[in-house]
Parts: sequence; C-alpha cells; structure tokens
Amino acid sequence: MFSFPVRIYYEDTDAGGVVYYANYLRYAERARTEFIRSLGFEQKEGLDHEDKFGFMVRRVEIDYKSPAVLDDLLDVTAELVEYKGASATIKQQVKRGDNVLAELVVTVVYVSYLKKRPTRIPEELVKLMTGATSATGATSATGAASGAQ
Amino acid sequence: MFSFPVRIYYEDTDAGGVVYYANYLRYAERARTEFIRSLGFEQKEGLDHEDKFGFMVRRVEIDYKSPAVLDDLLDVTAELVEYKGASATIKQQVKRGDNVLAELVVTVVYVSYLKKRPTRIPEELVKLMTGATSATGATSATGAASGAQ
Amino acid sequence: MFSFPVRIYYEDTDAGGVVYYANYLRYAERARTEFIRSLGFEQKEGLDHEDKFGFMVRRVEIDYKSPAVLDDLLDVTAELVEYKGASATIKQQVKRGDNVLAELVVTVVYVSYLKKRPTRIPEELVKLMTGATSATGATSATGAASGAQ
Amino acid sequence: MFSFPVRIYYEDTDAGGVVYYANYLRYAERARTEFIRSLGFEQKEGLDHEDKFGFMVRRVEIDYKSPAVLDDLLDVTAELVEYKGASATIKQQVKRGDNVLAELVVTVVYVSYLKKRPTRIPEELVKLMTGATSATGATSATGAASGAQ
Repeated sequence: MFSFPVRIYYEDTDAGGVVYYANYLRYAERARTEFIRSLGFEQKEGLDHEDKFGFMVRRVEIDYKSPAVLDDLLDVTAELVEYKGASATIKQQVKRGDNVLAELVVTVVYVSYLKKRPTRIPEELVKLMTGATSATGATSATGAASGAQ
Repeated sequence: MFSFPVRIYYEDTDAGGVVYYANYLRYAERARTEFIRSLGFEQKEGLDHEDKFGFMVRRVEIDYKSPAVLDDLLDVTAELVEYKGASATIKQQVKRGDNVLAELVVTVVYVSYLKKRPTRIPEELVKLMTGATSATGATSATGAASGAQ
Repeated sequence: MFSFPVRIYYEDTDAGGVVYYANYLRYAERARTEFIRSLGFEQKEGLDHEDKFGFMVRRVEIDYKSPAVLDDLLDVTAELVEYKGASATIKQQVKRGDNVLAELVVTVVYVSYLKKRPTRIPEELVKLMTGATSATGATSATGAASGAQ
Repeated sequence: MFSFPVRIYYEDTDAGGVVYYANYLRYAERARTEFIRSLGFEQKEGLDHEDKFGFMVRRVEIDYKSPAVLDDLLDVTAELVEYKGASATIKQQVKRGDNVLAELVVTVVYVSYLKKRPTRIPEELVKLMTGATSATGATSATGAASGAQ
C-alpha cells in the first residue's frame, strides 16, 4: 500500500503537547498528493489548465486513536477503496511504526475550480490508482473499482 | 444556538482560490472554545492545573457542501447533542448567512494531558452546556443530555 | 492608530506552551487587511480583477519580546510609515494590554499576481491610509508619506 | 552547507496562487531542527527535561525575492553565523534549484520554557554546529564562532 513519511515539527504541535487535531488532515493530503505524484500525475498541471482542475474534499471521517508528538516520524497511507464518475473514496492511516494513531475515510470530487462543476476523474489516473492499490494486495479496493466500471 | 463569527484571510485560503479543507476544523475549535468561554470557563485554567486538563478530539465527521472564499464573514455554531462521563458530542455548522458551507459532528473527551487518561467532564460545565443548548430551543440536545444522566 | 483584536486558540500555540513564532505574521496580516477594510477596500475586489491585484510582502523584520499564550486577547496595530510607487512600509505591534509582545516592520508591494509585476498602489487607498495614520497623530508617517510624493 | 528539502502542498499556498508568506518561517524552522538533528540532537529531549529547554526565536529578518508555488521542491539551508552564550544567529536560504526565493537571518535564544530564562546553549551542540558550518567551507561562520569564544 502507498505510504508517505511525515515528520512532526513545532509547527504541528499545540500547547497540549501533542499534534493539533486539524493537522492530520494536512498530512493526509500530502500523502494523497504523493500517491498521485507516484503515479506520474502533478496536481499543478490540472491547476494550470484553463478550467483549473483539482480534487476537492467532499467529506472526511477521522478517528483519533493516540496522539502524535514532537519529533515523531509518521507514515501516512493512502488507498483507493471506491470511485464513481467524479468521486473517489480514499482510506488513510496515520501510523507510528505499527501503531495506528489516526484513521481517515476521505471522499474527494474532481472539479473545475473555475466552472465550480464536478468532472469525471481522468480515466488514466483512475486506472493507475486502481492498479497501484490492487498491486499491493488491497483486494477490496480492486473489487470496488471493478464494480464501478 | 451558540454562534461565533470567523473572518477569512489569505492565511485560510489555498491555490484553488477557496478555504483549505483542514482549516474548517480550526474554526470549529474556535467556536467550541468560545462556546465554553461564554459559559464562564477558560481552557487555560484546565491546562494550568497540575494534571493539565483539556478536551481532546476523538472523532470528527465533516461534510463540505460549498466552499468559503477570501473576505467571507462566516458564522460557526456549536451545540451539545450528547454526553456521557468524559465524552461529549458537539454538532457544528459553518455558515455564510443562511447558507451552510460545512457541517461537523465532533466527539471530544475530557482528559488529563499529563496522565493521558480520560476524566469526567466537570459537572458544572456540563450543566451550563446543556442549559445553553436547551435555552436556545435545541430540544434534542436537552433530551440527549437528560438521557445521559 | 489602527488596532485589531486577535484571540489565541490551541491552533496558535505549540508544544513549548507559547504561540508558534510564524503565527505572528498571520496576525499582522489580519490587522493589515482589516486596516485596509476599515478604509473601505476589500482585497477580494483586487483579486477578482482580471489582472489579479494584491499586496505581496517583500520584507519582514520581527522582534519577539515576550511570548503570547493560550486564551490571550491581543491587539495588533498597523501604521503606514512610508510609501513610494508600488511599495509601502507598515509598522505593526502585537500587544497584550500595554505590553508589546512583538514588533514588525513589513514592506509590501502592490502587484498583479497574473502579470507578476509591481503596479502603483491605487491613489485613493494611499490617501486613505495616510489620512488614517495622520488623523491618529502619527506625524512621522505623515511626513514620510508627504516626502514620498 | 546544511540543506533540507521541502515540498509545497495545497496547505502551503494561498488564494494569490503562491506560498503564504508566514509559511517560509515554518520551513526555516524545519531546516534548523533537521540541522540540529543531523548533529545528533533531538529537540524533544530538551523539552522532556524538567526545565523544558528549547530554542526560542528572538528576531527574524526575511526578504522575499520570488514566490514559491504548488508542487515546488525547495531546499532550505541553515548555517550558524554567530553565537554568544544563550544566543545564536542562523542564516538561511529558501531555494528552488539555484534560484534563491527567500533569505532569512534568524536569532534564537536557548531558554527554559518553565523558568522563562535564557540559558547557555549546550557546549557540545555549539561545537557541532560550528564544526558542521566550518567543515563545509563557511569561513565567516568559523570566524564569528571563534570570536565569540
């Protein structure tokens, strides 16, 4: 499964001595971006298009299980679990070693920022995301992806 | 219902031209903090206690319905919908006028940051939160609160 | 002198128990924005123009004198001390009551984000900023502004 | 000279389409932290000490020369140019390839967060920082460091 390292700095923490709760959404987005980049896609290309394409988050569910702290080196995973048309659902974990600190289910929609309209996720990108997920053994994702075709 | 104004600055936006998705969790926390402050509680007092008390977020569900943009003046609501022992559930909306831009359900747990242990929410605070909610006509919250006693 | 209130929340603090140093630049920008808004200018109008006008920061000097902490209610001032063509220098203070916590000197340039080119600050805005500053007794600012004409 | 890579994500940008100006201070701090880590020091150890030791920033001068944008992969350098007792001055650059986007001069003070008092930077750390800087040919830094002894 795709995984991306995130180091915790002072900027990430709060006066409670732990990572501020909103910041896990930043790490999740870094991992999703790197997941897509690892497949050969740069988000800036979409943004530079005259219609200004990009993913917009529609819904997030996040469970905080154990807090991250200063100097932690975390891993953030990203796995496509479902998609249909303009919409995709990504499951993500924030881990310290084998310890899962937070779990997210993120629903994104591919949109034109300019036209403020959803638009079908580029077919090539979907294929690559599905392939990346199934290649690493995430069979449920493969199933969901197949079902959506 | 308790409501708190939030103005959108450059710091809040991203290159898509809208408010960055993680930032809604910052506004939600400002509103929860001000909700508690409006009842006469300062979070710093808990943090200055030798056991370092404070609310820790356990779970967030957030639905993004329509994006906020630069210069927007938003209202963020907070309403206690359920509590039990150390745990409370707050429903929140981020609104531009009557337009709901985002909806959150946030589960928080009262903890000692030092002992890393949940601890019962101060009874007086629960009473005030329940009263504040019911006084403004949120009958479901009153019901949930009563049921939890 | 123009002054704008800023409340400190968990999002603003770090594991050292104080406000994270980069965040003072966020508060300074909020105050500059509100200073301009108080004169009848909305930054979004510039951004919505086909050339995408806005202020870009060219240089910041900031001295940190005493840390802000959770729940603080600060005042952030903004005062035009010099301008010339596309460039303006703003002096700012972050205060808790009479206690100055941080002092900034910020040089901004009015640009077209699209053309990536500096452009003269709208004359009406300069007049208003100068007037606002001199009206509140900042004679050095008036002098500097006059000198620049 | 010590250099640390920083990737630009949506969280880093603003509605002007470029990196938000305060965020360069976050990258600078990441690079200073990694500079110290590369010498075998973890900041968390200082923070876990009963006196809660850490570096506090006293002054920043930053010149913004050219904006960073989404997807940029930047390098952030850190070089000790002067120190004395509890205080040290670090020169830093934010670069895209050979292109310098921003330049910082950062003065930090080693403090006990608990006692709110400056305290001498650990001698071993100073030696390592000086060595790291001189070893990479920064002769002015070596001179400054020698002069301060």
